[in-house]
Amino acid sequence: MMTFTTVEWNTDTCTVRMLDQTRLPNEVVYDTYEDYRDIASAIKELKVRGAPAIGVSAALGVVLGVQNSQAGDYTAFKTELDTVLDVLGATRPTAVNLFWALGRMRRVAEQNRTSPVAEIKGALQQEALEILDEDRMMCRQIGMHGAALIRNKSTILTHCNAGALATAGAGTALSVIYQAQQDGKAVRVFADETRPVLQGARLTAWELLQAGVDVTLICDSMAAQVMKEGKIDCVIVGADRIAANGDVANKIGTYGVAVLAQAHRIPFYVAAPFSTIDLSIETGDGIPIEQRNPVEVTEGFGKRIAPEGVRVYNPAFDVTPASFVSAIITERGIARAPYHESLAALLRADYTNKE
Amino acid sequence: MMTFTTVEWNTDTCTVRMLDQTRLPNEVVYDTYEDYRDIASAIKELKVRGAPAIGVSAALGVVLGVQNSQAGDYTAFKTELDTVLDVLGATRPTAVNLFWALGRMRRVAEQNRTSPVAEIKGALQQEALEILDEDRMMCRQIGMHGAALIRNKSTILTHCNAGALATAGAGTALSVIYQAQQDGKAVRVFADETRPVLQGARLTAWELLQAGVDVTLICDSMAAQVMKEGKIDCVIVGADRIAANGDVANKIGTYGVAVLAQAHRIPFYVAAPFSTIDLSIETGDGIPIEQRNPVEVTEGFGKRIAPEGVRVYNPAFDVTPASFVSAIITERGIARAPYHESLAALLRADYTNKE
Repeated sequence: MMTFTTVEWNTDTCTVRMLDQTRLPNEVVYDTYEDYRDIASAIKELKVRGAPAIGVSAALGVVLGVQNSQAGDYTAFKTELDTVLDVLGATRPTAVNLFWALGRMRRVAEQNRTSPVAEIKGALQQEALEILDEDRMMCRQIGMHGAALIRNKSTILTHCNAGALATAGAGTALSVIYQAQQDGKAVRVFADETRPVLQGARLTAWELLQAGVDVTLICDSMAAQVMKEGKIDCVIVGADRIAANGDVANKIGTYGVAVLAQAHRIPFYVAAPFSTIDLSIETGDGIPIEQRNPVEVTEGFGKRIAPEGVRVYNPAFDVTPASFVSAIITERGIARAPYHESLAALLRADYTNKE
Repeated sequence: MMTFTTVEWNTDTCTVRMLDQTRLPNEVVYDTYEDYRDIASAIKELKVRGAPAIGVSAALGVVLGVQNSQAGDYTAFKTELDTVLDVLGATRPTAVNLFWALGRMRRVAEQNRTSPVAEIKGALQQEALEILDEDRMMCRQIGMHGAALIRNKSTILTHCNAGALATAGAGTALSVIYQAQQDGKAVRVFADETRPVLQGARLTAWELLQAGVDVTLICDSMAAQVMKEGKIDCVIVGADRIAANGDVANKIGTYGVAVLAQAHRIPFYVAAPFSTIDLSIETGDGIPIEQRNPVEVTEGFGKRIAPEGVRVYNPAFDVTPASFVSAIITERGIARAPYHESLAALLRADYTNKE
């Protein structure tokens, strides 16, 4: 079990509690949220990040946003709800789980439109807590499916943080590693530091150390060399959005790692929940890529490291074509190419997200 | 002409003056050196870096190390000289220009062994100043040869700093860019920031801005994406050592860029003086790779960015196999595969380094 909680709901105070990930690894600080606008800011400022965790915190943000509503009828309530959904939806454009979670909340409100507002509020709270619970379960299931791919004495490279800190549970990519270790397999991890925001150095290294996993930190530029030295048996990363054809949007740098893995004949796995798969988008070309503030690059760590006036290109994500992806590990099982068929088949399968 | 001087000899005071590159881009500070041990420290601490500049500063360090010698005969002088050579040679293991420059200084002393010590000192100073002059000339010639490879309206990706700051002249890789621009070609540059020491962000971006070159800074992990977007026409990097078969040791991350360039069918050029080519080493496997302090990774931005106790792998260089290198641009001309033959042919050619 994790020694920390990324995001949780406090039923007594009706507030959200989140670990402030911008202060890791030096400080472990939890913040309590009462206002959905503060949740939106926290998502924008990367205090909470990781596609699944963004979805969960946005759903809980909706609960905060409407719980004090004085609306007398559905129409008035719907107006307030739409504002809340809009503000939360405008935080991060790439992670589809955000829109998936907000969509679920919107639908629950619509389904309960004939009920009294108090009941709609209750249904929304219940839905958000279900999203949170499902997220935990999803992590466990991804871990179990994925661990089957990990041989004993494996060394795994990961990029960014697709761990417990990116979800409400044990993570996606890192859940596979935790499960393999729990199964008695010896696993080692190389973590890319993941510039510019250093999620690998600050978050992945931290949570793996907390969990007693053997982790070695490298700069992103060292991944190729580590692969060339034969140190890496497979790569596992998370995803922020997956198109119908299996193209994967994930943290900037993922595409480069995928190209390097293929050049070194190393399997490249993506671990992500079904909520990450966006069947409405045919290929990765349709995935919007968030551009972030140049200061993340030029003064990311409290110190200016580039000359004043330099132009900066700072895309937050890249798209890895499906041809580089050896398998996509989901909570429903493992999909392999051709992904158009395998993802659709897993989606059609009679499945419930609850054990 | 450059607005700064990386390393120079002051004939009046018999001292060395170097720009402290660890303080760039925020401060432009020159230090004056009177003691060869301080030169050795400056090389170790990366105050001066870049294979050619290391060679020049080491040669000047030898002059500092012996100029006050009280030795009465060659045997006593040789003992002192050997200490100086050993201290300077123990600074950075990968850059062969260091050993090449120290070897030239050693041979000059030996050739003058029958002369009075004062004359040996004079010969050493002359040799060091020749190494410095040749370095400037070498940069110009590499620029002219390399510029022929650059088409008008090209965008060039570079990694680390192989510029004026890495030499006593206009640089190696960047000299090609300066020359192409001087020839009236429109050139743009994408500079990898080059973790962990950020030579790209701190040095390359700085010197290109100084020279009025259009430069965009990216994190190392973005190079793949920028290539995929079709933004890059060619890659040019420097080298710290080149084996007889054309394998290239250069700043960590270079190998990854080379793999990515090949995957995107982008020419990958190496610009380096002949002093970088080590024909005594058959392949890159024989090149020693310097491992550096983990704090460069964990606290590189003046702030701890990784959890205490995390293991770090921090090789300073990697080796790019010759099969990834489209051409090696030297002061004597351009070599292409097979490099064993082309490098040897350029070496044999009747050539003098002076115009």
